[in-house]
Amino acid sequence: PQMDPQIGGSSKRFMDFPYVSAPHRDLMVELVSTMESRLESSLLPCTLPQDVQYYHNHTGTAHACLHIRSGLKPSLIDFMLGSWLHCELPAGALNITSLSTYLSPLTDAPNFLMELIQSSPTSLVFILDLPPRKDLVLHPDYLQTFYEATQLNRHRQLLEKIPEVRPYSSSSLYIRFLVSPTAILVRIETGGTERMEEIVRHHVSSIAKEVLGTWLDWCACGERDMGEADRDYVAKRDRMIKQKTIEIDLGSSLPRLFGEEVAARVLAAIQEVFN
Amino acid sequence: PQMDPQIGGSSKRFMDFPYVSAPHRDLMVELVSTMESRLESSLLPCTLPQDVQYYHNHTGTAHACLHIRSGLKPSLIDFMLGSWLHCELPAGALNITSLSTYLSPLTDAPNFLMELIQSSPTSLVFILDLPPRKDLVLHPDYLQTFYEATQLNRHRQLLEKIPEVRPYSSSSLYIRFLVSPTAILVRIETGGTERMEEIVRHHVSSIAKEVLGTWLDWCACGERDMGEADRDYVAKRDRMIKQKTIEIDLGSSLPRLFGEEVAARVLAAIQEVFN
Repeated sequence: PQMDPQIGGSSKRFMDFPYVSAPHRDLMVELVSTMESRLESSLLPCTLPQDVQYYHNHTGTAHACLHIRSGLKPSLIDFMLGSWLHCELPAGALNITSLSTYLSPLTDAPNFLMELIQSSPTSLVFILDLPPRKDLVLHPDYLQTFYEATQLNRHRQLLEKIPEVRPYSSSSLYIRFLVSPTAILVRIETGGTERMEEIVRHHVSSIAKEVLGTWLDWCACGERDMGEADRDYVAKRDRMIKQKTIEIDLGSSLPRLFGEEVAARVLAAIQEVFN
Repeated sequence: PQMDPQIGGSSKRFMDFPYVSAPHRDLMVELVSTMESRLESSLLPCTLPQDVQYYHNHTGTAHACLHIRSGLKPSLIDFMLGSWLHCELPAGALNITSLSTYLSPLTDAPNFLMELIQSSPTSLVFILDLPPRKDLVLHPDYLQTFYEATQLNRHRQLLEKIPEVRPYSSSSLYIRFLVSPTAILVRIETGGTERMEEIVRHHVSSIAKEVLGTWLDWCACGERDMGEADRDYVAKRDRMIKQKTIEIDLGSSLPRLFGEEVAARVLAAIQEVFN
């Protein structure tokens, strides 16, 4: 049934990543496939409405796919969320792809978070982190287990050696505090598109795959010994993060890019999964 | 009584800051004076042993002063700690000056922290922050009160516009997580000493004085409404920070620069104030 009028004749699919460069697309497909195949037994199918799995604005200048799979209950997985977004803006095309997975309160191990924000073919913001789920100041043992023993810092150090890479600072103080001390938050600016594709293929991809491997092996691998109070604390902190992340990130950008009506529909669908 | 043989004939005093440039010294003297005069009614005199207030190594290549004043009990102040350190190293002279004040569990407002690490006349690491005393992820209202409403981020943005300023990342993941999202953590590298003195006089000094003013007016200004559980939490978190900071920072650098014996004496005196 063609209830939803499609711009250009057909709906777009999540795994197509239709607007980004080949190495960028290859990376996203590999990360999502690895994540889904490793966590398959804990994941429910994506039950988002069709007009949230793919949505666009009235004029057809902005398109996006959203792919959310909730975790089975009980399992280690709260949900995984993948997305892409393409938007023609006066300054050029904006392309954002993201993949994140939140764990359940059966563990306090870090979540997984990756986002690639391409504001032009020669400018890319690369965000990759295992955001902590406890206050690291009060729990240095947690810092040791998940960040020091896993040597996550070496990826950051590798990237810093590439001349086109500069630190990136989120404009939101909350987001800035949410990430771990080993977070990769960089802006890559190249002289040409070929060099950008080379950096994505050789550096961004290998680092993202390694960090996902670390997360799957060390974080998404089993329950952690926690008391009832600990589980309540982690659940409360997770809820706060989900609420604030929507408010700061999507809550401000979606209405701007897709209009109030589309944004409200998409945000309501996300809220439903988050609650 | 001349029990402690002094290199060069006389002991050195904290407020002299004898080894740093004039603008660096002027800044430290002004910050310490402002801090002490504003908090005077809550501060006890410095009771450190003479050989901890000033200490040096056997060969006379490393000198340091330490100035710690505990807060009256009950008061908002846990302690204030000022220090300078001078060390002749093969690569050149290392000069560190610092000023920090920890608040008591009568408030959960942020502490004050400043450190200037000069590894050569043309290289300076500038650390300035009001480190939070709660988990900001769980308490966005705290972030709003102390970091957003105070517009602390603008100092960081001002500094980033100076071409000689680059971000600085502590090698300790724990220290990196301890600071707030508005923390100034930069390395300044200049072509000559005159330009460095200019940057210290015009930018570093004005920012440091403004942040100290913000801290005195917004943080060190009164009790905060907290339950018993909150006070216990803050006290526990503060203890952890003090313990880890000594372990990571002084515990590794002092033995290297001053020898085991001097380091043990100084660390024991600091531990006594911290407990």
